[in-house]
Amino acid sequence: MLKKLRTPDELKSFSVKQLEVLAGEIREKIIDTVSRTGGHLASSLGVVELTIALHRVLNTPADKIVWDVGHQAYAHKLLTGRLEQFDTLRQLGGISGFPKRDESPYDAFDVGHSSTSISAALGMAAARDCHGSQEKVVAVIGDGSLTGGMAFEALNQAGDQQKNLIVVLNDNEMSISPNVGALSSLINRKMTSELVVRIKKEAENFLSHVPRIGKDLLKVARKAEDSLKGFFTPGMLFEAFGFDYVGPLNGHRLETLIPALENVANLEGPVLVHVVTRKGKGFEPAERNPSLFHGVGPFDKATGEVRGGKGGPASFTGVFGKTLTAMAEKDERIVAITAAMLEGTGLKEFSQRFPQRFFDVGIAEQHAVTFAAGLACQGMRPVVALYSTFLQRAYDNVVHDVALQRLPVTFAIDRAGLVGADGPTHHGVFDFSFLRHIPNMVVMAPRDEIELQRAMLTATLHDGPVAYRYPRGQAFGLPLPDAIEPFAVGRGEKLRDGNDAVIFALGTVCREALLAADMLAGEGLSVGVVDPRFLKPLDKELLIAEARRTGVVVTVEENVRQGGFGSAVLEMLGDEGIAARVLRIGLPDRFVEQGTQPQLHARYGLDAEGIAAGVRNFIHGQTTNPQSRASGA
Amino acid sequence: MLKKLRTPDELKSFSVKQLEVLAGEIREKIIDTVSRTGGHLASSLGVVELTIALHRVLNTPADKIVWDVGHQAYAHKLLTGRLEQFDTLRQLGGISGFPKRDESPYDAFDVGHSSTSISAALGMAAARDCHGSQEKVVAVIGDGSLTGGMAFEALNQAGDQQKNLIVVLNDNEMSISPNVGALSSLINRKMTSELVVRIKKEAENFLSHVPRIGKDLLKVARKAEDSLKGFFTPGMLFEAFGFDYVGPLNGHRLETLIPALENVANLEGPVLVHVVTRKGKGFEPAERNPSLFHGVGPFDKATGEVRGGKGGPASFTGVFGKTLTAMAEKDERIVAITAAMLEGTGLKEFSQRFPQRFFDVGIAEQHAVTFAAGLACQGMRPVVALYSTFLQRAYDNVVHDVALQRLPVTFAIDRAGLVGADGPTHHGVFDFSFLRHIPNMVVMAPRDEIELQRAMLTATLHDGPVAYRYPRGQAFGLPLPDAIEPFAVGRGEKLRDGNDAVIFALGTVCREALLAADMLAGEGLSVGVVDPRFLKPLDKELLIAEARRTGVVVTVEENVRQGGFGSAVLEMLGDEGIAARVLRIGLPDRFVEQGTQPQLHARYGLDAEGIAAGVRNFIHGQTTNPQSRASGA
Repeated sequence: MLKKLRTPDELKSFSVKQLEVLAGEIREKIIDTVSRTGGHLASSLGVVELTIALHRVLNTPADKIVWDVGHQAYAHKLLTGRLEQFDTLRQLGGISGFPKRDESPYDAFDVGHSSTSISAALGMAAARDCHGSQEKVVAVIGDGSLTGGMAFEALNQAGDQQKNLIVVLNDNEMSISPNVGALSSLINRKMTSELVVRIKKEAENFLSHVPRIGKDLLKVARKAEDSLKGFFTPGMLFEAFGFDYVGPLNGHRLETLIPALENVANLEGPVLVHVVTRKGKGFEPAERNPSLFHGVGPFDKATGEVRGGKGGPASFTGVFGKTLTAMAEKDERIVAITAAMLEGTGLKEFSQRFPQRFFDVGIAEQHAVTFAAGLACQGMRPVVALYSTFLQRAYDNVVHDVALQRLPVTFAIDRAGLVGADGPTHHGVFDFSFLRHIPNMVVMAPRDEIELQRAMLTATLHDGPVAYRYPRGQAFGLPLPDAIEPFAVGRGEKLRDGNDAVIFALGTVCREALLAADMLAGEGLSVGVVDPRFLKPLDKELLIAEARRTGVVVTVEENVRQGGFGSAVLEMLGDEGIAARVLRIGLPDRFVEQGTQPQLHARYGLDAEGIAAGVRNFIHGQTTNPQSRASGA
Repeated sequence: MLKKLRTPDELKSFSVKQLEVLAGEIREKIIDTVSRTGGHLASSLGVVELTIALHRVLNTPADKIVWDVGHQAYAHKLLTGRLEQFDTLRQLGGISGFPKRDESPYDAFDVGHSSTSISAALGMAAARDCHGSQEKVVAVIGDGSLTGGMAFEALNQAGDQQKNLIVVLNDNEMSISPNVGALSSLINRKMTSELVVRIKKEAENFLSHVPRIGKDLLKVARKAEDSLKGFFTPGMLFEAFGFDYVGPLNGHRLETLIPALENVANLEGPVLVHVVTRKGKGFEPAERNPSLFHGVGPFDKATGEVRGGKGGPASFTGVFGKTLTAMAEKDERIVAITAAMLEGTGLKEFSQRFPQRFFDVGIAEQHAVTFAAGLACQGMRPVVALYSTFLQRAYDNVVHDVALQRLPVTFAIDRAGLVGADGPTHHGVFDFSFLRHIPNMVVMAPRDEIELQRAMLTATLHDGPVAYRYPRGQAFGLPLPDAIEPFAVGRGEKLRDGNDAVIFALGTVCREALLAADMLAGEGLSVGVVDPRFLKPLDKELLIAEARRTGVVVTVEENVRQGGFGSAVLEMLGDEGIAARVLRIGLPDRFVEQGTQPQLHARYGLDAEGIAAGVRNFIHGQTTNPQSRASGA
């Protein structure tokens, strides 16, 4: 049936039975494909019926569906003409793992970062009302994404504006949970009897296991026995914001979901539909372990066993987590903060070893940073572990709440540089540029895992804000020393002598630069390599001496070429009046596509071959950046 | 009494009557001083009693008070040893208009931007619990600041953590208002009878005038007659987040406020205290017009008449507002968005002329930008008017929600460059650096109000994201033409010929550069001036030709020297292999203090004299930046 479907419009003629068969086919296709390509499996499996129901009830693409984060949109892609290309999911030149307006008119908004959907959908609704047209606008947002502050900012304005807007709360039974107080029958108008029975039975146990607002609701539910004011439900929360509330609905039962959404689509004003789904639904290993199958590599679809991964060197993330735990044994001031990325940032061991000194604040990067600032004010040494791309959310907090007061907050920036298959929304290629101009910051990019450990200790010893960044994926398998030696702040290291040119390579690209120098040596070119270690402050003495000596400088960084490390070198040379020729190798001034990390490194001239080519041409007098030719930058 | 007070500790021995006298003295001092210096009058007058009560009940500075935004902290400053310096408020070398940890141990956290207080206070509470100490931590946050998403992020974690934490909601009777449904007597445990009578009487009328959540509560209150689920109060909202709720309290009645806060200080877990105050309390003109007296210049304290201001040229803000309104008459796609800065961004006329096309989203910059992205997806041309320093909050939204999709959103960046008395938290000196590296952006900085109009039209005609920035304060009084001529994107203008050097001056500094060139001409130096107009894309053809011709380039910008316009010029010249000498004049790599705009321009070499000195020295072969000598940068 999936093969025959040409547009989602055709779903309107299907029976519920047929739609259920279709749901099965979609699940099979998703599991089969992701078992080979890797991807966001659990979220997408959880919303197969919801996606079918939405496309059945709405008239897409005239009606708009804005998927929050977008990692749940695989069923949406399969229903909207991308079955044929689905095998190319997340691959170089293939379809994106996230909705993309360039890819399909059915993708209403490009997403990847959390908590944007209500804002974008409200903007679309406002535009519709300016145009006087009638399309529906729907935001689909997970309970986790609701912890992001901008979702509340949007709810607040949406409630005020009273425009026609449907927000589907996709509740994975993880965070926001139905209250089962005396009012539940009033609130949960559409609750199926199956759910009622199960939830009523498991409620206390269930609520006591969920984080944040769930616990608060439990507290309120307990108070309900004492006084009227305890009668608080999720529905009331949204009603307080001016929304009508419908739910909770069983997100896997099409026969009730479709008529409920049909009713909702005809309501006026903002409506919140609370849909309860199960992450990984229909694939037993993913239902059992939704965290593992949230974003997963290739796996065996018969057994659910994830392929590879176990062998090979530890990841940078792993080294970070292990090292921070060891450092915290010796230094009681160290506390760790993450924003809903406990496993992604390698802090699981830390959280178990030091539960009182570990804080997962939810998807709330702004708060994470300012919370760290408060900790630092009182003598702690907070380490905020975030992905580079998500630290972008907290730029102002870094400037205004940390750097302005010179507070000793450490930013451990994971997934820096090119991340691979997640593509343009997730590459961490701006952090050099958005951190370097912030006064009082110290910024490092260690070249390997030994240097990462050294950067970590350096950060904790420094009495002010420090950031260090490291990439996604495996480190180099270097043996880690027993004792960690900190850096002198602002001191780099000369790794190789050379007279024809010198490469300043900041971060893990340093390894490629050394290989490039080897290659060039084979051609008779003598090229030095310096690891500057610090983006800020630069090791002026070393870098200037090398620039003076050779007169030919090549900077290499896994960051955009605008305002990053290469620019810092230009600024330094300009201020000192040194007339060296400088080639800056880095990423071009456009968003970088998806692909494996090696593919992208090769494409952008950041592997050994690319660096060697750049240096070779530059020494021979060609000033143009090789990658700018290759990629049209 | 105020004169005799040495530490706030001494308040504990005062009677309520004495404290009331003290409150009068504090008000008088604030009104007297601000009538001469200007400042944030209305907010500070509103919390005189609350400040006295907090210092009376707490043991500061061991106990911590975190003031949100901090523009209400004048009474706090007077009570904590800064009476003598109070006349220097907001002046060069004087005390700050905001709390500053460097200024006093009683200032627990540096603030200026909204909605950070609960995060910082929770961090301090977490540190306290790590240390095992017992101090109290209090965040004081206005109802307006609660619309900022990060305040919700912090409430969410605070409720989960259940640490001892007091959040004082300073409710100016503006946004969050007490519900008067059947449950009010249960909820409003401490409500004074005076308030009860007044509020019950005026409730409907009152609620119908307040924005956002107030209206929603009204709606809910109306529903209360129909069903139980309508019984929602502000107290329940906070209780849902895991807070105990106390209030509303009359924020001006010390005899009830003090015992209530004493009770609160002894509660375990997170508590929200709802205090109702009146902005401008005790100064009749400010009570009547709290908006005008929010941040005000010098005024006549007898009549409340604000001095000056009316004469002289229109402000850049005024030109922007007037021009946008005119443009919107002709172009139905134009909508305007602001974040709680209707008057500050000059959009009052627009909002009245086009109420359907104007959106004030509250203090919610992230949402503002993504909301604009949604509008742009559907064919509108949204103009987001924000202060430069507040746009920092939405950096990720600019990158991820606008630039990635090349959406035609315009960022009208007001208060760019040095803003004056508000100081380091408010200077807009990073925007060149944080916008320039974002792919797809076009960034302009018009040199005067005529060029601002042209930049505005250029932005609307461009099919992608555009930003233009302009400073706080009066424009130059130039006659505005009847017809606005757009720029060609990426084309600058040569304003003056010269052979010894060329100045590239981006933004309103261009005027000073022309004056500098005049001065230098008097000394026999021939210096050209180019207005590049565009930070991005640069006018390569023009700038390279001038750099080649003279070989001596001086860039001038009211932005930090790191990663900004000067760096863009260095990058361009480097990429093209042009060996011109370049002097970059801009702000140093540290936070800039408060002072008048002319004082700061002079101090940092950004006025005509400073630019002339820089160019003169540079032509004579001194490579060091003059301002870096003057300011130690």
